[in-house]
Amino acid sequence: MAKEVNGFNFEQRHGKERVRVARVWKDKDGRHFMVEWSVSIGLLSDCVPAYVQDDNSDIVATDTMKNTVYAKAKECSELLSVEDFAIVLAKHFTSFYSQVTTTIVKIVEKPWERVHVDGQPHNHGFKLGSEKHTTEAIVKKSGALQLTSGIEGLSVLKTTKSGFEGFIRDKYTALPETRERMLATEVTALWRYSYDSVHRIPQKPLYFTEKYLGVKKVLMDTFFGPPKEGVYSPSVQRTLYQMGKATLDRFPDISSIQLNMPNLHFLPVNLSTKDNQIVKFDNDVYLPTDEPHGSIQASLSRIWSKM
Amino acid sequence: MAKEVNGFNFEQRHGKERVRVARVWKDKDGRHFMVEWSVSIGLLSDCVPAYVQDDNSDIVATDTMKNTVYAKAKECSELLSVEDFAIVLAKHFTSFYSQVTTTIVKIVEKPWERVHVDGQPHNHGFKLGSEKHTTEAIVKKSGALQLTSGIEGLSVLKTTKSGFEGFIRDKYTALPETRERMLATEVTALWRYSYDSVHRIPQKPLYFTEKYLGVKKVLMDTFFGPPKEGVYSPSVQRTLYQMGKATLDRFPDISSIQLNMPNLHFLPVNLSTKDNQIVKFDNDVYLPTDEPHGSIQASLSRIWSKM
Amino acid sequence: MAKEVNGFNFEQRHGKERVRVARVWKDKDGRHFMVEWSVSIGLLSDCVPAYVQDDNSDIVATDTMKNTVYAKAKECSELLSVEDFAIVLAKHFTSFYSQVTTTIVKIVEKPWERVHVDGQPHNHGFKLGSEKHTTEAIVKKSGALQLTSGIEGLSVLKTTKSGFEGFIRDKYTALPETRERMLATEVTALWRYSYDSVHRIPQKPLYFTEKYLGVKKVLMDTFFGPPKEGVYSPSVQRTLYQMGKATLDRFPDISSIQLNMPNLHFLPVNLSTKDNQIVKFDNDVYLPTDEPHGSIQASLSRIWSKM
Amino acid sequence: MAKEVNGFNFEQRHGKERVRVARVWKDKDGRHFMVEWSVSIGLLSDCVPAYVQDDNSDIVATDTMKNTVYAKAKECSELLSVEDFAIVLAKHFTSFYSQVTTTIVKIVEKPWERVHVDGQPHNHGFKLGSEKHTTEAIVKKSGALQLTSGIEGLSVLKTTKSGFEGFIRDKYTALPETRERMLATEVTALWRYSYDSVHRIPQKPLYFTEKYLGVKKVLMDTFFGPPKEGVYSPSVQRTLYQMGKATLDRFPDISSIQLNMPNLHFLPVNLSTKDNQIVKFDNDVYLPTDEPHGSIQASLSRIWSKM
Repeated sequence: MAKEVNGFNFEQRHGKERVRVARVWKDKDGRHFMVEWSVSIGLLSDCVPAYVQDDNSDIVATDTMKNTVYAKAKECSELLSVEDFAIVLAKHFTSFYSQVTTTIVKIVEKPWERVHVDGQPHNHGFKLGSEKHTTEAIVKKSGALQLTSGIEGLSVLKTTKSGFEGFIRDKYTALPETRERMLATEVTALWRYSYDSVHRIPQKPLYFTEKYLGVKKVLMDTFFGPPKEGVYSPSVQRTLYQMGKATLDRFPDISSIQLNMPNLHFLPVNLSTKDNQIVKFDNDVYLPTDEPHGSIQASLSRIWSKM
Repeated sequence: MAKEVNGFNFEQRHGKERVRVARVWKDKDGRHFMVEWSVSIGLLSDCVPAYVQDDNSDIVATDTMKNTVYAKAKECSELLSVEDFAIVLAKHFTSFYSQVTTTIVKIVEKPWERVHVDGQPHNHGFKLGSEKHTTEAIVKKSGALQLTSGIEGLSVLKTTKSGFEGFIRDKYTALPETRERMLATEVTALWRYSYDSVHRIPQKPLYFTEKYLGVKKVLMDTFFGPPKEGVYSPSVQRTLYQMGKATLDRFPDISSIQLNMPNLHFLPVNLSTKDNQIVKFDNDVYLPTDEPHGSIQASLSRIWSKM
Repeated sequence: MAKEVNGFNFEQRHGKERVRVARVWKDKDGRHFMVEWSVSIGLLSDCVPAYVQDDNSDIVATDTMKNTVYAKAKECSELLSVEDFAIVLAKHFTSFYSQVTTTIVKIVEKPWERVHVDGQPHNHGFKLGSEKHTTEAIVKKSGALQLTSGIEGLSVLKTTKSGFEGFIRDKYTALPETRERMLATEVTALWRYSYDSVHRIPQKPLYFTEKYLGVKKVLMDTFFGPPKEGVYSPSVQRTLYQMGKATLDRFPDISSIQLNMPNLHFLPVNLSTKDNQIVKFDNDVYLPTDEPHGSIQASLSRIWSKM
Repeated sequence: MAKEVNGFNFEQRHGKERVRVARVWKDKDGRHFMVEWSVSIGLLSDCVPAYVQDDNSDIVATDTMKNTVYAKAKECSELLSVEDFAIVLAKHFTSFYSQVTTTIVKIVEKPWERVHVDGQPHNHGFKLGSEKHTTEAIVKKSGALQLTSGIEGLSVLKTTKSGFEGFIRDKYTALPETRERMLATEVTALWRYSYDSVHRIPQKPLYFTEKYLGVKKVLMDTFFGPPKEGVYSPSVQRTLYQMGKATLDRFPDISSIQLNMPNLHFLPVNLSTKDNQIVKFDNDVYLPTDEPHGSIQASLSRIWSKM
């Protein structure tokens, strides 16, 4: 995308970030549906004169982008997935403006969940949950599409069935080997769908919303293992790989997945003075810490695909 | 608590904050239980010489306080409520050190929730939820106790059955009256128990954990109303009052409750230029915003009680 | 302020928080002055019917409060201190509305500082600094005033001339005594002025802005000591007391000061295995940490004054 | 870097993040120097068996990486730039471990600044400033180096000499054109040095520290213009380009620069009702907002270079 400008290679993009929008729909039975999205838009466009000649005639004002988010949300007369809304927006900017060659739309959905009162789903009441559903849609002039979905902030922990042994020992190594430790992480997952054109997206309503729930379930089930026995994790690396592989094995239209799983340490507490043992660790008392943390990330993609 | 020191009124406290501890318990069937707490300790104590004479002989080192948290967590051989642990700690500091007249322990519990896999509760798997359970225990030398529990970060929203009419109109007023708006807030609740001595605390295990769940349910049920019809809110003030009153009506051993319910506005989106209406609002498209926000807080206490 | 309502003691306030406003003034020489404030307003007022009877007729809408901030900022035709603006606002609400008995205005000023280019102060260029100037003005119907100013986020550190010895040693104590350690803290200071009525405030422009700079200098000079030798700190407690006392000694119209000085530990790094010393500490390598941290806070007030 | 593993393309890295270290040096005149760094290490290495076969024998434990940071900090007997420390670490991991093909070290330096007391620089007193110096060093087995430095959190604002005119107007456009507005941004800058091997780094002590200060000065001087007149900015795009170009023009050993300059809007305040104008804007009262914000980013690189 780089251009030669005044003797430099030059790349640029501009857009609007943190555009917050909520959309409410009501069905004929008085049931309300709602979403809250934080939208970021980035345009790759032919507007070099704004940078080098004080000429803004090819610039889409970021205020206009913001207005468009609201206008397009208004046009959505039916509940739709965050992925479908990202595609709607990206298609719009790419087709509406001759200057725009590529549009990148990222959205984070706030995890509002319908509440239950007296065991019944509430018609119009919602409560905020924890982990977040994200998406990124990139649409080019040709109609070419890259569609990614993700999870942010999925914090999971198991109190046993985790160890770490047999790693490199050298003069900087103090960590003991263990077959029994806590394992805690905050999963960030990104997966890419194989649909490579805006014309090939499944038309089923909420298709991607269901996929999101499905991927989350596969990731969690693989992390935890069966409810009684669990599953032994010999390293974060091994567990991450199995989670990624299970996702690709289960969902044929996902072409790649990237997982970021920091190792959020729960340190065994042993405290003593010269004369006195204050606390002796017995897999019972831990010091949880975020700083520092291990960082393990990897991506798996089907051959011929690219994240 | 103020003393006269060198011609000044002087008040002081010292302590340790953000002591993180996790505790795991295992039952005979292989089921694990775990809590993660962030503990803050404050001591009111006779240690003025440290301030005015370079004499630390009456100072409990904050590092010692930290160690004590771990030692006491170790001693807890059974799962206990965050309130009970706060009382254990506060009693310890007040009785162990002659210098300490009052101990203030605040704890925030991380909302780890047992996961379900294949419809079964997992033996050792946990996932982070959203709102947080908090507590504060204040114990004096005499054994006098103030025990408060709370909820932080309970974000709730309803898409209808809310309005705001009949308020003061003056030359600074631009807000239209309405009988139809979104209502969103992040509830912070603090309630005080009537137990005023460490000797009178209920001995039932997890007594306060169950109370916490009970109060949360009453607050939410009152906010949302019945699942079909909901309940009309003429103001955040009115809804807050009803939530507080319902809590006191339901729980005789709660002597007071304080509620902080910011009005997190979802602004109707109407966009137009001189020539063109871009978006016309029809209870469908909203701009959610945290800044600025309304701030509504109140406390209700039984006569003769004091928060 | 509590009232008896339906058999309960009842206290309430409502207001608007995080109202952001910037104000620019230009002098005849083309020099610009600017401030950016985040304003919080709280009203204590007679409006119980809103809570108990669905009657909003005594409620000042929080949207109206927001508008008033902008209207009053507009009316300020000359650069003024954040304290003076807080008083302007608090006076307004208390006198304009018969229902309002007390107004509490808190403001945080963003630390925009004029930049220098080529050694010259820039006419209209500003850069964000670090610590923040805060204020709180409380005005009652009678004209009674409580005026507090403060500093937030003043992070200071000295690499020597700090120790901690002679404290209580017991079975939970592991901390060694030392006469040589790092001392780091983030000072939060609040000081109250003796002006107890809106009619007695000094009329000198920017009076309180200069005071703020003066207090900050006294706090820092006392913390650090002379540039060559510094000053030995036997405890955070001792240093805090000296900082507070120096402030009251220096400024007769300050009636009290409250200081919160967490002990942000820089832990000595000693690392070893059974066979091998990886790092041996020699006052050179430290692990800085915020969690946990010591917490030391105290207030000094002149006899007959109250914070 | 992708490998084929079990029928997938596979990429991975692991490391340690948020390793905090402070280092103090003392000169013979009693003057202390100190730095505080937050270090992140990422290793690209041959350790696929950990992912697919439960075999950790090629894994460098992240705990070992942490220890190494402290050991290497200890070895640094003289004050050095954050860039030089990043290179020391990256070289170590790449050469010490046969499995490691590339090491990526990122460091953020906390902006501790020497204080002045009585007009003199203090021997051992420091205060936290605002914007942060960052660096990233990537070292490969061959000795190939990519060295990047950066600034984070440089918030700057000018109250005039900014406008935005002549942009695209369409049915979603409501923004008026203007030649007079506030311009505020938080600059994130990253620049890459042309040194492409660990053997070619300048040996002058604090070489990169001085460069950092130089780049910051060029960026700011270009943003603000001369102290009296300033310089007119027709768009954030234009100003960004001039800042990047000025940097490359001034520093021959910088091969490229990337600038991210969100447009942090200060909205003109105009408030009115049907009957009444509450506030009429006259370049005086603004509503500052971060959400949403414009996003403008670009990179300039010398031909034949690549960021």
